[in-house]
Amino acid sequence: MEERPLHPDRLLPADPAARRLARELYQSVEALPIISPHGHTDPRWWGENPAFTDPAALFVTPDHYVTRMMVSQGVSFEALGIGAGREKDPRKIWQTFADHYYLYAGTPSRIWVDDALARLFGVTERLGPDTAMDIYDRIAERLPQDDTRPRALFDRFGIEVIATTDSALDDLAWHQAARDSGWTGRVVPTYRPDAVIDPDAPDFTRNLERLAQVSGCDTSTYDGYLDAHRARRRAFIEMGATATDHGHPTPLTADLPLGEARALYARVRSGKMAAQDAELFRAQMLTEMARMSLEDGLVMQLHSGSLRGHSAEVQAAYGPDRGFDIPVPVSFPVALRPLLNAVGMDPRLTLILFTLDETTYARELAPLAGVWPCLRLGPPWWFHDSFEGMRRFREMAMETAGIYNTVGFNDDTRALCSIPARHDVARRVDSGWLAEMVLTHRLDEAEAYEIAPLLAHGLAKAAYRL
Amino acid sequence: MEERPLHPDRLLPADPAARRLARELYQSVEALPIISPHGHTDPRWWGENPAFTDPAALFVTPDHYVTRMMVSQGVSFEALGIGAGREKDPRKIWQTFADHYYLYAGTPSRIWVDDALARLFGVTERLGPDTAMDIYDRIAERLPQDDTRPRALFDRFGIEVIATTDSALDDLAWHQAARDSGWTGRVVPTYRPDAVIDPDAPDFTRNLERLAQVSGCDTSTYDGYLDAHRARRRAFIEMGATATDHGHPTPLTADLPLGEARALYARVRSGKMAAQDAELFRAQMLTEMARMSLEDGLVMQLHSGSLRGHSAEVQAAYGPDRGFDIPVPVSFPVALRPLLNAVGMDPRLTLILFTLDETTYARELAPLAGVWPCLRLGPPWWFHDSFEGMRRFREMAMETAGIYNTVGFNDDTRALCSIPARHDVARRVDSGWLAEMVLTHRLDEAEAYEIAPLLAHGLAKAAYRL
Amino acid sequence: MEERPLHPDRLLPADPAARRLARELYQSVEALPIISPHGHTDPRWWGENPAFTDPAALFVTPDHYVTRMMVSQGVSFEALGIGAGREKDPRKIWQTFADHYYLYAGTPSRIWVDDALARLFGVTERLGPDTAMDIYDRIAERLPQDDTRPRALFDRFGIEVIATTDSALDDLAWHQAARDSGWTGRVVPTYRPDAVIDPDAPDFTRNLERLAQVSGCDTSTYDGYLDAHRARRRAFIEMGATATDHGHPTPLTADLPLGEARALYARVRSGKMAAQDAELFRAQMLTEMARMSLEDGLVMQLHSGSLRGHSAEVQAAYGPDRGFDIPVPVSFPVALRPLLNAVGMDPRLTLILFTLDETTYARELAPLAGVWPCLRLGPPWWFHDSFEGMRRFREMAMETAGIYNTVGFNDDTRALCSIPARHDVARRVDSGWLAEMVLTHRLDEAEAYEIAPLLAHGLAKAAYRL
Repeated sequence: MEERPLHPDRLLPADPAARRLARELYQSVEALPIISPHGHTDPRWWGENPAFTDPAALFVTPDHYVTRMMVSQGVSFEALGIGAGREKDPRKIWQTFADHYYLYAGTPSRIWVDDALARLFGVTERLGPDTAMDIYDRIAERLPQDDTRPRALFDRFGIEVIATTDSALDDLAWHQAARDSGWTGRVVPTYRPDAVIDPDAPDFTRNLERLAQVSGCDTSTYDGYLDAHRARRRAFIEMGATATDHGHPTPLTADLPLGEARALYARVRSGKMAAQDAELFRAQMLTEMARMSLEDGLVMQLHSGSLRGHSAEVQAAYGPDRGFDIPVPVSFPVALRPLLNAVGMDPRLTLILFTLDETTYARELAPLAGVWPCLRLGPPWWFHDSFEGMRRFREMAMETAGIYNTVGFNDDTRALCSIPARHDVARRVDSGWLAEMVLTHRLDEAEAYEIAPLLAHGLAKAAYRL
Repeated sequence: MEERPLHPDRLLPADPAARRLARELYQSVEALPIISPHGHTDPRWWGENPAFTDPAALFVTPDHYVTRMMVSQGVSFEALGIGAGREKDPRKIWQTFADHYYLYAGTPSRIWVDDALARLFGVTERLGPDTAMDIYDRIAERLPQDDTRPRALFDRFGIEVIATTDSALDDLAWHQAARDSGWTGRVVPTYRPDAVIDPDAPDFTRNLERLAQVSGCDTSTYDGYLDAHRARRRAFIEMGATATDHGHPTPLTADLPLGEARALYARVRSGKMAAQDAELFRAQMLTEMARMSLEDGLVMQLHSGSLRGHSAEVQAAYGPDRGFDIPVPVSFPVALRPLLNAVGMDPRLTLILFTLDETTYARELAPLAGVWPCLRLGPPWWFHDSFEGMRRFREMAMETAGIYNTVGFNDDTRALCSIPARHDVARRVDSGWLAEMVLTHRLDEAEAYEIAPLLAHGLAKAAYRL
Repeated sequence: MEERPLHPDRLLPADPAARRLARELYQSVEALPIISPHGHTDPRWWGENPAFTDPAALFVTPDHYVTRMMVSQGVSFEALGIGAGREKDPRKIWQTFADHYYLYAGTPSRIWVDDALARLFGVTERLGPDTAMDIYDRIAERLPQDDTRPRALFDRFGIEVIATTDSALDDLAWHQAARDSGWTGRVVPTYRPDAVIDPDAPDFTRNLERLAQVSGCDTSTYDGYLDAHRARRRAFIEMGATATDHGHPTPLTADLPLGEARALYARVRSGKMAAQDAELFRAQMLTEMARMSLEDGLVMQLHSGSLRGHSAEVQAAYGPDRGFDIPVPVSFPVALRPLLNAVGMDPRLTLILFTLDETTYARELAPLAGVWPCLRLGPPWWFHDSFEGMRRFREMAMETAGIYNTVGFNDDTRALCSIPARHDVARRVDSGWLAEMVLTHRLDEAEAYEIAPLLAHGLAKAAYRL
């Protein structure tokens, strides 16, 4: 067997008949434009179109998927360019990465990095201790060139539309700059109000003041606070937003009488919270956000179930998003009931659910999405954005949820170069799944050819109203 | 590939060698009689043998598997013939179903409907917007004929015995009518006492009065209430019952001292319950039901873990069983301990456990069934009565529970026409599983041929004492 | 298909291409020495090298995997040689086993027994009612011979090193005897202090007194108690130990201020415990054990999540370890946080986690092991030490944890004859998994040949510092 990072049949089923059909299905969707309705690319990239500085800054230091694995095997954050006494030489950081590249065997990160190295930089040998510097040089040489800048990559990747994720307090200046520049690439913001909804967020009280400034609404009352959200949502919509996103520890929702909600807001705003107030306020605000979606049409996303900053020491020394965010068990039926009973039958609402707890796929999420008109299932998220993760999602959720209650693929990444690789993995895995459905006569072959482009493109476009 | 709803090798493994063996195993059990020890067919069908009125009433309106999927995509209950302002024209309901039939791609419902359409009505083209009316007419033409009435279907389906599920308050008149008619089909009732065991059930107190009337026992005391159960169980046994069934929110059991149990009954009967009394009473009654099973030999079934009526609005407007019953996490070891420690080593008891939480298969249910003499594992239930659901059950439970601690297949349905399809799916999936066990040398081929008819027929007959 | 217990391709993938590669990978590791870093063989075997008495005592009576299955189908413990009125004739016990051997179809126990019968005793026909006595005689004839004694089996099995599991109160006399005998087989103890750490353990207070005696430390104070642990750990290290093992109901850890820990110890020692004290003390001691590991280098193992003695009646009549230990749900992130925040970034610590709750593989354990430098994932444990269990572990944990954060295989057994079979199963399943990784181009073929011996041998040796 020929050994090289990118085999044309990678991730397709091993069985010859299944591979043959999967390959044809894949080829029918391989070149479809990318819809990226949820991700974390830096808006500055789109507004300013800067060149990337060096290979380590592009592939290693900011990618917590990559750094966590080396940390797990004893590499220091400093050696990866992170923290006060950090290594400053990108060549040394790159060499450390290459020396440990064997650790990624069998992981999604290797697939993404291999794909990006080959697709963007023509690197088809395996990264390793011996090849590190040669590969570094070949990437570094290309980075200053125009065709490796963000907007050129947008075109090269075949992106039809990409959404960033933006604080409710963000002035969206980079989005404005992208528009003003005359560039025609479609980049839209997403309204992510966690900083002004989560009383446990750092600087919550100050964030409420900033919300008042940026919205022009009086956030000293609950009613003014809700108006501020409405104003900010309008501003996001004017900049192209079609969705909100909510990152909560749990999926709890609440639907309090107005008087109680006002009193709760008064408590969380003043910092005089009772024990469960923060959780209850987050819960209440999910329902308020859903109500606002009825009015303004923003699609709602809920990402819950991650315990952030598991290591206090790492959080303090190296900051958030360093790989120490660990999933915990969640359960949706009781948690979502207040919101759903308030607005769940309203045809104007779309609420897309994500989970890090795969036990909820078959037990809860598929039955919920298979009956509530507002609910859709987001694709496998974070640790589950992988070959096996996607297989499990299809196997566990589709029979009960049905294909049309899903929303295609999200890349969910801040690693720009990994975007085409991530979508490509999804298209391959879904093609393999469809092929096996056909070969076991659970789908007709013609249906598989209709469904494949929906999974790759159409469902995301429709669900996110893009 | 030829495209038609019913491929002869559907649901068998794609791998050629596995398919060859699976096909032979399947052919060895395909025509075995159907044992249906747990289901929800209407006893009136068997007592009166009426003709079905129209295709929509047969396939759409009463089947919550079917209606929930259309509701999830925005179709109103009314359009499906449900609720106050409901559509009355069955042709229009059928057309709505056909227009949305693409939603069922990859779901069990499509397999069942396709199978029933082909098997009973000779329909081998795909249901869809264009074929809807022609298919409707072909079904409607057949419904008044004798060979499409319930008892004829009983014979055509090859049913050896079928159990209905009946309230403890039911007079079993339709069962009596079936007997009196001289029809020889074996239809037996199942004792389902939830309405008089669950203090949260509607009209619980009135149900206790009705229990007194129908049993001739004084239900104003706990001892009389238990006697009433004994009397009703005897009446069910006289009508052929071999099993009880218990649908509880959780699998909690309790074994209170008699004085406490009497006091608890007094509280739940009077409606002056403390917070946990309803749950505790249900728990206590599971153990009492098990004790009665030692005396009268009724096999006990426990179905737990569904949160009923998730949408209050739907429950109020359209009633129960509309697809808004959502599974929640359950755990068995601590919950079942009181019952098991009371009677679990008694060789007279059989307790069959069902779950909607697949995480319990390998973690709890297989270890429990693999050691407690009374315990057996029911087949994949409800949302898990599917190709993937059955695969997961076999893969997760069999290594620890062993094949002989399972009870074959349940169709669990009120959709009469789906019964042969459901059993057929199970026989196909199990044949595929056995074939793969043989090809990986985890079973001998001769063993597989011995086990296949047990899975399809023998284990259910033995476990349910039929 | 030829039918016999041991097919040379057993447990390898059914697909021809995958099987071909898997077979070659398997052949490359089949004969590697066995590293058995965690198990329950009797130290007396190694110290005294006795002959085994009879086939029933070797294969049936002490093996709770074997006895539980017969009990689940109504066989009495007495018939299996257990309890007051137990059967004394090993031939009768063996016949009972053989009569019920069909129950093990598809279970790991059958694979292990078949393998041991063939490998050690040349038995290649299926055990059953008719073959029982002949097979009995052939085994019984061999047992007195030198080459069937424990030390000979050690050599025949190709064991490089084996660890026993020993109470903190054990004097390690059999280990000393093995050394003194001049035998060169490497057998090492493992420090298992549950009896002096778990306040719920039988005779806990007396155990603390015995700990004082055996350690020479004053266990009437917390500081002296900790010193006693240090002393015992040193004694174990002198006898070759490289690891500790902790069997706790839950993985809860704590890191109390010293004053609180001292007060807690005073309470648990005096038996005047508050409700949560036992759990809290176990939690605190896990962190203390981790701290001691920083000093003395012992690798730490945590086995949690089993509810022991589910049947009080069986526990009382037949003792512990009779198959009535049932897994319950566990969750690691919150539970382990105190320990990890105390010492988790220290490069001297290795903490190997085991679970009986497979839902934690992808959700919690892989993300935790994929970032914390101290954490490693133990292999599938107990009920999950099986074909399907190993597959699920690879599929659910590897993408996020990475291969190098795992520790190879543990046999975890007191059934000596099953050791080579258990390692053989792991090598086969891993070879099949690697082959499928290669065929779907998730690994290079050359990598698979590098990783296979690590899974079979190298990772265990390194992780356990053997």
